[in-house]
Amino acid sequence: MTTVGILGGGQLARMLALAGAPLGLRFLVMDNVADACAGQFAPMVVGDYRDEAALAEFASRIDVATFDFENVPAESARWLVERVDVFPNPRALATAQDRLAEKTLFRGLGIPVPPFAPIDTLDELRAAIADIGTPCILKTRRLGYDGKGQFRIRGAGDIDAAWQALGAQASKVGLILEGFVHFERELSVVAVRGRGGEFRAWPLTENWHVDGVLSASLAPARVDEATAALAVGHAKRLAEALDYVGVFALELFSRDGELLANELAPRVHNSGHWTIEGSETSQFQNHLRAVLGLPLGDTRMVGTACMLNWIGEMPDARAVLDEAGGHWHDYGKEPREGRKVGHATLRSDDAAALAASLQRVGTALGRQDQVLPVIHALQD
Amino acid sequence: MTTVGILGGGQLARMLALAGAPLGLRFLVMDNVADACAGQFAPMVVGDYRDEAALAEFASRIDVATFDFENVPAESARWLVERVDVFPNPRALATAQDRLAEKTLFRGLGIPVPPFAPIDTLDELRAAIADIGTPCILKTRRLGYDGKGQFRIRGAGDIDAAWQALGAQASKVGLILEGFVHFERELSVVAVRGRGGEFRAWPLTENWHVDGVLSASLAPARVDEATAALAVGHAKRLAEALDYVGVFALELFSRDGELLANELAPRVHNSGHWTIEGSETSQFQNHLRAVLGLPLGDTRMVGTACMLNWIGEMPDARAVLDEAGGHWHDYGKEPREGRKVGHATLRSDDAAALAASLQRVGTALGRQDQVLPVIHALQD
Ligand SMILES: Nc1ncnc2c1ncn2[C@@H]1O[C@H](COP(=O)(O)OP(=O)(O)OP(=O)(O)O)[C@@H](O)[C@H]1O
Ligand SMILES: Nc1ncnc2c1ncn2[C@@H]1O[C@H](COP(=O)(O)OP(=O)(O)OP(=O)(O)O)[C@@H](O)[C@H]1O
Repeated sequence: MTTVGILGGGQLARMLALAGAPLGLRFLVMDNVADACAGQFAPMVVGDYRDEAALAEFASRIDVATFDFENVPAESARWLVERVDVFPNPRALATAQDRLAEKTLFRGLGIPVPPFAPIDTLDELRAAIADIGTPCILKTRRLGYDGKGQFRIRGAGDIDAAWQALGAQASKVGLILEGFVHFERELSVVAVRGRGGEFRAWPLTENWHVDGVLSASLAPARVDEATAALAVGHAKRLAEALDYVGVFALELFSRDGELLANELAPRVHNSGHWTIEGSETSQFQNHLRAVLGLPLGDTRMVGTACMLNWIGEMPDARAVLDEAGGHWHDYGKEPREGRKVGHATLRSDDAAALAASLQRVGTALGRQDQVLPVIHALQD
Repeated sequence: MTTVGILGGGQLARMLALAGAPLGLRFLVMDNVADACAGQFAPMVVGDYRDEAALAEFASRIDVATFDFENVPAESARWLVERVDVFPNPRALATAQDRLAEKTLFRGLGIPVPPFAPIDTLDELRAAIADIGTPCILKTRRLGYDGKGQFRIRGAGDIDAAWQALGAQASKVGLILEGFVHFERELSVVAVRGRGGEFRAWPLTENWHVDGVLSASLAPARVDEATAALAVGHAKRLAEALDYVGVFALELFSRDGELLANELAPRVHNSGHWTIEGSETSQFQNHLRAVLGLPLGDTRMVGTACMLNWIGEMPDARAVLDEAGGHWHDYGKEPREGRKVGHATLRSDDAAALAASLQRVGTALGRQDQVLPVIHALQD
């Protein structure tokens, strides 16, 4: 009997546990809140990641550890790694936690990135803007998620407001300035690498964000084979450089047929949720297979799929359950503004059927804005 | 927040909980043993189904009740029904618990059955054998499962041995004599009926038993459309007659193009496990949708699928995980002779690919006997 420990007890941990049960696995989730939604389907250790007693209890009851949450303190990961196997390894985690380290690595591997510069002072910000140009985005180096900790600078007149908003973070989590990319599309490669180095990627996913938060994903993305191969090649080089084990997502901007890397998510990823129904093997099961050294599952798609994120509160399930290819995912969380509380996946045999399904669901739920960009993409 | 109570905590309850989590449901499982495998993923009330205090606690914490186990005492089901919604209803459960009531109902609905007769005494057994002929099977009316409580009578010389084996049960659970059917195939209709009467069936499944226990299932079954329609019609009439809500299986023998009903399983069924990966909606999710009055999910197949049951102990997972369409289900149970501990589903785009996959898995696991009948069926 193998017990997998998961640091972080949100929806990713919950879906990992549900996907791992058929492998005969048991789970233990650690989170600092007792009502973390993964706790509805797995036992929990409630405690702060920095609390050594809680970590020790967690470590003593598991065979291998992984993450639902990428901002687990690097010290905690290193402490754990001396006691149990931890995948992905702490170095991969630490790299992905720091936008500067991440972008520096990307560049070192020949993966194109938007222009960027580390920022410690207002003077450095001014100098970097002079260099990179506007528009650009000032971001915290660490602890950002869902577009939080970012300030868009349209012109030199925004510099003071940007520094007002984020300057105090320079000495805490660090800052980075990035050139703004006028992208045509946002893409992600969701991929998995096994303990023995085996690598597999799912078909590319196309993503739409609203206010910095993922709103919809479409798979397969509308990209030609050369672009897909390029993106997957980037992901593979990255995984090998980090000796990465498990599932990760590489987020990319596509512009004029060029790909620019945005960030690495060192875990199962929201843009891969469609794999539960849309692929032979879900990202959740393949993450566990990788972490346990089991053969990786097939990542081919079954039809075409669109994931719609539910933010803040769950809509009425019926509109989705009425669809032949409609699948519902309620994370069992309390509604709260801006919170990811669930998603739906619509799966169809072809693009036309998927567009029609999205149209019906968007209309029934009054969410035309959310489905329209995907419908347009499907009609392209 | 809706909590579904499940009476019985075996693998069916476990798979129900795993399938219901994405619907935002919570579960409470009642079983008389504390280590029932569903308890690994759902909270439990441990207690005997006849223990009113335990039942009362169970009822107080749930919104609706259903079954993993069909032999829950009818009194317990009736007691519950006065306190919470219970699906399927106790009458359907009671009918399915009694082979005599079940076969009588089948006949009344025009669903052909093998010849049968209730048996209370040795004299009645002799008379019934004279009437029905040999070979025939003496079975307990109630509490039989996996071929237990059955005695095959090849000729008049076996009568005394049969009575020796089962006679004492006549006054306890009742006995029934059935004509032995020289079937060509065993089939099952796995179907679901909603609270509003909506009815859907999955494609027919073909089943192979070894020593009375399901060994392998293949979907779709090799039957012509007329036979499939006939079988589904039987299932629909049965569900309507019982005002059945939820998933059930109707087991049938096919012989010379004729269908004879064997039994009704008033719950999700082993022969429907392939629906987890082989259908747009699994039997587990559709059972919950039905019980909760939600729209039923699409029951169409995705490709072709074979389920292999693991009895007694789990084989090595790798041979299955190595297959592109290989899916593993370990129920987290202790190995024990004759116990259903897990299953695998192999899914492929077509029959030839499925046969090749079965061949590889059968060889790797030394289980040629288990896969061969299915391979032959696929090559027919
Ligand atoms: N350099 C950029 N140019 C243009 N748009 C950007 C840039 N950086 C971020 N964005 C937009 O903001 C979104 C969120 O940014 P980013 O991925 O850096 O934030 P995050 O907080 O780490 O988000 P997530 O939780 O989605 O990973 C991006 O998906 C993109 O839509
Ligand atoms: N009348 C019959 N003629 C031929 N074979 C039979 C007959 N009745 C039962 N069998 C064989 O024995 C198997 C198990 O019988 P049955 O379904 O009655 O038992 P059970 O204990 O209720 O099984 P299960 O748990 O699979 O529902 C059948 O699938 C079939 O292979």
